[in-house]
Amino acid sequence: MYSFKNDYSEGVHPEILKALTESNLEQSEGYGEDSYTKKAIELLKEKIKRSDVDIHLFVGGTQTNLTALSAFLRPHEAAIAANTGHILVHETGAIEATGHKVISIDVSDGKLRPEDIKPALETHTDEHMVKPKLVYISNSTEIGTIYSKSELENLSKFCKENKLYLYLDGARLGSALCSEENDMDLSDLANLVDAFYIGGTKNGALMGEALVICKDSLKEDFRFHIKQKGGLLAKGRLLGIQFFQLFKNDLFFDMAKHANAMANLLKKGISEEGYKFLTHSPSNQIFPILPEKVIKELQDKYLFTIWEKVDENNSVIRLVTSWATKEDKVLAFIEDLKNAAV
Amino acid sequence: MYSFKNDYSEGVHPEILKALTESNLEQSEGYGEDSYTKKAIELLKEKIKRSDVDIHLFVGGTQTNLTALSAFLRPHEAAIAANTGHILVHETGAIEATGHKVISIDVSDGKLRPEDIKPALETHTDEHMVKPKLVYISNSTEIGTIYSKSELENLSKFCKENKLYLYLDGARLGSALCSEENDMDLSDLANLVDAFYIGGTKNGALMGEALVICKDSLKEDFRFHIKQKGGLLAKGRLLGIQFFQLFKNDLFFDMAKHANAMANLLKKGISEEGYKFLTHSPSNQIFPILPEKVIKELQDKYLFTIWEKVDENNSVIRLVTSWATKEDKVLAFIEDLKNAAV
Amino acid sequence: MYSFKNDYSEGVHPEILKALTESNLEQSEGYGEDSYTKKAIELLKEKIKRSDVDIHLFVGGTQTNLTALSAFLRPHEAAIAANTGHILVHETGAIEATGHKVISIDVSDGKLRPEDIKPALETHTDEHMVKPKLVYISNSTEIGTIYSKSELENLSKFCKENKLYLYLDGARLGSALCSEENDMDLSDLANLVDAFYIGGTKNGALMGEALVICKDSLKEDFRFHIKQKGGLLAKGRLLGIQFFQLFKNDLFFDMAKHANAMANLLKKGISEEGYKFLTHSPSNQIFPILPEKVIKELQDKYLFTIWEKVDENNSVIRLVTSWATKEDKVLAFIEDLKNAAV
Amino acid sequence: MYSFKNDYSEGVHPEILKALTESNLEQSEGYGEDSYTKKAIELLKEKIKRSDVDIHLFVGGTQTNLTALSAFLRPHEAAIAANTGHILVHETGAIEATGHKVISIDVSDGKLRPEDIKPALETHTDEHMVKPKLVYISNSTEIGTIYSKSELENLSKFCKENKLYLYLDGARLGSALCSEENDMDLSDLANLVDAFYIGGTKNGALMGEALVICKDSLKEDFRFHIKQKGGLLAKGRLLGIQFFQLFKNDLFFDMAKHANAMANLLKKGISEEGYKFLTHSPSNQIFPILPEKVIKELQDKYLFTIWEKVDENNSVIRLVTSWATKEDKVLAFIEDLKNAAV
Repeated sequence: MYSFKNDYSEGVHPEILKALTESNLEQSEGYGEDSYTKKAIELLKEKIKRSDVDIHLFVGGTQTNLTALSAFLRPHEAAIAANTGHILVHETGAIEATGHKVISIDVSDGKLRPEDIKPALETHTDEHMVKPKLVYISNSTEIGTIYSKSELENLSKFCKENKLYLYLDGARLGSALCSEENDMDLSDLANLVDAFYIGGTKNGALMGEALVICKDSLKEDFRFHIKQKGGLLAKGRLLGIQFFQLFKNDLFFDMAKHANAMANLLKKGISEEGYKFLTHSPSNQIFPILPEKVIKELQDKYLFTIWEKVDENNSVIRLVTSWATKEDKVLAFIEDLKNAAV
Repeated sequence: MYSFKNDYSEGVHPEILKALTESNLEQSEGYGEDSYTKKAIELLKEKIKRSDVDIHLFVGGTQTNLTALSAFLRPHEAAIAANTGHILVHETGAIEATGHKVISIDVSDGKLRPEDIKPALETHTDEHMVKPKLVYISNSTEIGTIYSKSELENLSKFCKENKLYLYLDGARLGSALCSEENDMDLSDLANLVDAFYIGGTKNGALMGEALVICKDSLKEDFRFHIKQKGGLLAKGRLLGIQFFQLFKNDLFFDMAKHANAMANLLKKGISEEGYKFLTHSPSNQIFPILPEKVIKELQDKYLFTIWEKVDENNSVIRLVTSWATKEDKVLAFIEDLKNAAV
Repeated sequence: MYSFKNDYSEGVHPEILKALTESNLEQSEGYGEDSYTKKAIELLKEKIKRSDVDIHLFVGGTQTNLTALSAFLRPHEAAIAANTGHILVHETGAIEATGHKVISIDVSDGKLRPEDIKPALETHTDEHMVKPKLVYISNSTEIGTIYSKSELENLSKFCKENKLYLYLDGARLGSALCSEENDMDLSDLANLVDAFYIGGTKNGALMGEALVICKDSLKEDFRFHIKQKGGLLAKGRLLGIQFFQLFKNDLFFDMAKHANAMANLLKKGISEEGYKFLTHSPSNQIFPILPEKVIKELQDKYLFTIWEKVDENNSVIRLVTSWATKEDKVLAFIEDLKNAAV
Repeated sequence: MYSFKNDYSEGVHPEILKALTESNLEQSEGYGEDSYTKKAIELLKEKIKRSDVDIHLFVGGTQTNLTALSAFLRPHEAAIAANTGHILVHETGAIEATGHKVISIDVSDGKLRPEDIKPALETHTDEHMVKPKLVYISNSTEIGTIYSKSELENLSKFCKENKLYLYLDGARLGSALCSEENDMDLSDLANLVDAFYIGGTKNGALMGEALVICKDSLKEDFRFHIKQKGGLLAKGRLLGIQFFQLFKNDLFFDMAKHANAMANLLKKGISEEGYKFLTHSPSNQIFPILPEKVIKELQDKYLFTIWEKVDENNSVIRLVTSWATKEDKVLAFIEDLKNAAV
């Protein structure tokens, strides 16, 4: 069985493992105050081209989101998210558990635009309702779509005008920024959002997300929140070493490019068989619509997620590629699809 | 500079690193549903001699504590801890952040006995006060002391009689169970407490704590709580592989024994110079009382924590040893102490 | 200006005020442990025909809801509510502030049926999502509709089968139970739901809601939760005296009947002018659709809420009647509507 | 039986009841936006001699405390309170339930001075511990003592220097400000603390506390927090009418003076019998130390609280007087004490 189920099925890129191994017996300070972490943060600031941002390394995405949002928001303030938003559906109410409502906005492509958010602002008008204060977006989104620079500029402008924080969940940011359709870099991001994180777990690290806080007023005392929410890793250097390796020679981007290339290859092959897709997803997640019978056959050899039923005979499946996805497995999948399709 | 500052200064035991490396490119299920994690849990159950316990692997101790306590307690229920308890002072109010008061009990040796807890039960009598419901203890404690089996039996009996859960924080459980003065094993623990965790981070793992839930009524839906609190590691196998290696050939105990031996060596050397200690600590943390002037000199070559002032001229320092502590460094420290003491 | 804006514009029914005045200088126990409260609770149990329920008196509805739901639910459990549900939109995220997600269900008439809830159960399948555990309904609903006995029976059966608690917000329960279309009584309610509250504030009391807990497992330690959430009134007898008066001679029902009669009169008059309504609301809230121009004129003499725009020229308004609504004012309103309509 | 158990045993001062009765059938806006509440707030600002403060009316003290503190503090910030502090022991963990630790300071007289607080600041030094941010004091304290102006000035200066908010719980502020030993007025208070509340419930109102927010940065969006925590009273005018009556002709102070006079009378009588007191309490709560046998006899005719055991034969009792305490009952109590004492 070969898995297209997610992008965290394998361990870590061998380069990173090598760095972890080489430094293994050195002594270092705990809780992210070691020299590896400091170096990684300096390197990230260079890549982002902003020396004034604050950067904190986390183990996982849900923890990053819940720590950031609960630190940024006052008790009566709420987040706004697309109906597919990870914090809305797939984090077991982690944000609500810190006391904050997440307002759901129905959209079809996983992305928020000013016109999607406006109605929520118009209906939340007084103290009998929560106060919308933070817009949560993902790039790439949970259904594989990505934001263009102009889309993000519009959203950023709208958020500033309405005193909303703009927060970007970058669990799959590598794939988004390396998409053929992308026209942004890390530096653009840092200028357009108030905080975002760069996902390592889903792009070749053992684990690790780098939260970048761009807005000054959101920076104060942030390490208290990490510790309080259980996110301060004792051997913090594990994160520092990994992020340094990820960005030292652009390994982060190389891995994301490979993942995207594999997704493109899959997409092309599936398309050529005449199948359609749930969304236009130029990143490492694709959502083909296949007949149940074909799906059944593919399941004999491959692991993937059944996303949702489309009609009685067809379902959407999700295929995810990663830095570790093997081209021969992709080609075999396409071949098996062709045969199944007969 | 050589560090006696803590037991998480180095990386991971080379045996474990080897296992992580060998499995690195295999694909596995995410979120702890992989075969490595399953194997590790089976192995742990054998070691504990209880097939009926539930075991969950966490990344760190604060997260384990906050997830467990918030899952076990209803909103009006409180934890009771010794005044040195980790949850009380060194977790940034993590338990309170989940809504629960921690009642502090003044004791001198970091350990709770029935007579220490009784007054708290007697003063919390009605609905105008929180309801004490869980007794939190650590073994070894935050100041290096350990529980004897009969002490734990007494406490366990008292808790049962008073319908209190007994929870044991085992961040340094390896050192406690391998102390020369210890008379318990994992199986005894599981029979005496309602839940406890076996600490990996401070005993040779990259990171990792294994929470063991012994009481049936505390088990239900526990994975929801892990996810909600941000503790469900995507590449969960990292924890599974490590715990399997830790317990496969008793590496966990061998490492703890080494840490204890190094602490004993330090203690003997310091004692022979005529210095006293803050507590009787038969584990891997010792707390000698040294003249400021001696401390200053030692600080030129060694890292350690200044614990507290004793009087104008003397302070307590904390020295921590680990699986990775080198005997020659310990001997050098004692030699330097001798010379400083002159 | 005469107000149809809500049902808490006036003070308290004179009978109740008389009882408060007569007992004013007596001494009594605090925090609801007085004899008036005990008598009121006994009387309520008789009216409900269940001696085994637990009853607690609260000052207001939001506090009742947040105390009950946070006491009933474990951290990972969520409530389900109709999109118009009071807890969902008009309590400033009070439920989320206690840590629980409220899942919104789109319905057109403010009522939940099994088929509305089923999809939420089907999509919340594992520990990456919250666990739906409590169904929140209102009777009458926030848009004036009411549940029939068979509707509630179906819902109750469905909830039992799916291990969901059924909770009924009775802020306007008086009006619902006295509606011409109602076929239930308090006793039916207590047999069909797990907990509900009988609203006094919106039916002639100064303030006060009586929470009835029917399900045994939800009763334990409930007063701790009231105190913790700030809801334990020092002079608790104020609530006891009022509820005793409300139910001693069925004043509660008489007042609700008057409110409904006034709403019916309004509805008839508005209907006869040819206007339509947003919903079929056989209770004390009605939602006529009127031309903007007519609304403007009425606003010179009357206070009411503009509910929502229907199209460019028409809006829904909300008219609320109460125990204190005067028939001559209702007739005047209809007359003014006729003239405005010309 | 006559009760000296608390100062909320009776209803409301007849003057206030009259005002409630006279306005009873008028219509008014809900949720504290009525003209009565506005007038009361204006009057309070005059009495405080500060037009720039924000004032919000609450139903009860626990709710005032929990709403204020949770609105003022960020998640990692903690309150500091004396070991007798109401929020620390008698509010069922209400502050912790909003996520904040309350740090307990051992003092003997219920009052905090800079030197009591300093050690807490010195031990809470980094992100592994909560950040002390708000000092909670009560005046009069829970054991009847009061602050002098110079004591409060010192504390205020210390808090400003250390960036701590100073919050004063005024559940019994009337009694404190009308004590023979008091040298402050409401205006002094408003200049020395960041927020405080004026207690109505324990000084002749049906219920009600007026929270005064003096510090600008604590004012924003405060009504959202009241609503979210369930404290926004629908018929808010009940509070407005009461506070207007309380302060229109200084009824508030007259009632407090009466309560204090009755406490003084009790104190003098008890003193003359040779009994000692737990504390020097120049307010409406006194804590005589009496032999068990005397206490038993008094319990036949009077209700009061047994505070704590002093030794085998003696206990402290608490006697509380109020605006409604009758002089003849006080004299009878003293007489009975004399006879019991024989």
